[in-house]
Amino acid sequence: MADSAGMRDLGELKERVRAFVAERDWERFHSPKNLAMALSVEAAELLEVFQWMPDADSRNLAPAAREAASQEIADVLLYLVQLCDALGVDPIAAAERKMVANAAKYPVEKARGTSRKSTEL
Amino acid sequence: MADSAGMRDLGELKERVRAFVAERDWERFHSPKNLAMALSVEAAELLEVFQWMPDADSRNLAPAAREAASQEIADVLLYLVQLCDALGVDPIAAAERKMVANAAKYPVEKARGTSRKSTEL
Amino acid sequence: MADSAGMRDLGELKERVRAFVAERDWERFHSPKNLAMALSVEAAELLEVFQWMPDADSRNLAPAAREAASQEIADVLLYLVQLCDALGVDPIAAAERKMVANAAKYPVEKARGTSRKSTEL
Amino acid sequence: MADSAGMRDLGELKERVRAFVAERDWERFHSPKNLAMALSVEAAELLEVFQWMPDADSRNLAPAAREAASQEIADVLLYLVQLCDALGVDPIAAAERKMVANAAKYPVEKARGTSRKSTEL
Repeated sequence: MADSAGMRDLGELKERVRAFVAERDWERFHSPKNLAMALSVEAAELLEVFQWMPDADSRNLAPAAREAASQEIADVLLYLVQLCDALGVDPIAAAERKMVANAAKYPVEKARGTSRKSTEL
Repeated sequence: MADSAGMRDLGELKERVRAFVAERDWERFHSPKNLAMALSVEAAELLEVFQWMPDADSRNLAPAAREAASQEIADVLLYLVQLCDALGVDPIAAAERKMVANAAKYPVEKARGTSRKSTEL
Repeated sequence: MADSAGMRDLGELKERVRAFVAERDWERFHSPKNLAMALSVEAAELLEVFQWMPDADSRNLAPAAREAASQEIADVLLYLVQLCDALGVDPIAAAERKMVANAAKYPVEKARGTSRKSTEL
Repeated sequence: MADSAGMRDLGELKERVRAFVAERDWERFHSPKNLAMALSVEAAELLEVFQWMPDADSRNLAPAAREAASQEIADVLLYLVQLCDALGVDPIAAAERKMVANAAKYPVEKARGTSRKSTEL
């Protein structure tokens, strides 16, 4: 990997990760199925940071825990970007469409202040 | 949520999600601990798309499975963005730092063509 | 599946699940890799029951949530039993060995009342 | 923990784990919510064993990978037993009921040889 300073967006990150993987000849391992597994494993490592923590403490994280969370967030994002690249999915556009769907499923007047599922509103 | 067309980056997505959550008064539920749980649940729903699928099929996904994956990717990203917002973590910068660390852990000459962990290289 | 009343232990459950899978010709899908994925997906569905719930509420679960948790616990156990069967692992013996190891890693006098990891004790 | 040799079933395991936790005064951390998180984290560690592995290799696991899987299986079971204890759920009975429900959802004649979901049969 050459100079990695100053990445600005997901598109640039995608290019960097693609080069990183190609240099190591890892495409053979990185099927979408395996990438989804890896993403799930990293999400669990992120979860582990908060495992025994009182909920209130998680809102005011100690620096070491915040740094640990930050590293696991990075791992999740790196696999997410690769999976999107492999499937030809634009993550920002997908999130945008999902937000539109969520707004219809959770109208403000019904969803305000409750954590109920849309099917129970 | 007002007009959602044309989101271009994670920063914009963060603003939109923040407004969406605030309108519904959901901040009380969205502690970093709970967000990490939600992210992990969505990562598993993404995994479920590939659950019984032969690895090769995942590289050539049927349209319905690709759309399902795309929606779960969106959910993962939406919670990731919220978690980053809550923790004050810049996800692109975190991923960039992680790639630098990964490049040191997995030097090309040792890591090429193997899926071994860095501790076993 | 014939009469399923009165199962008493994991050994019997293993036999029943094995027959259930064989009748449906599902062994081809049930590789250990896929079983581990399925188990992880079910564990996340169990997690989802508790997702937005205050910690205290989870200690005093409403009947519907308890029933939902019970069903996901069943799914986790069913895949765990199949995975053990496929790998030739005795889950009770494995748990027993792990408890011995955990007792050494977390001696009572050091571990009492703290959720710190063994490496931080 | 006193002598742990010869555990024979989940009931005995439950008693042992309960004593282990009580000795360390860990009940305060072991809410059902936190136990479900811990179980999910361990399920992901189990998944990690198979992460980059070709499906066929997982059916013929190398001894080191089998031992690693066995230890993670133990962790999953230990948290599952604690969660059942906390919720008053009998895991064998829950699995038995789930198998009856699964037999109805996946009748042999329709489910044979396919990995489709029940809703798609």
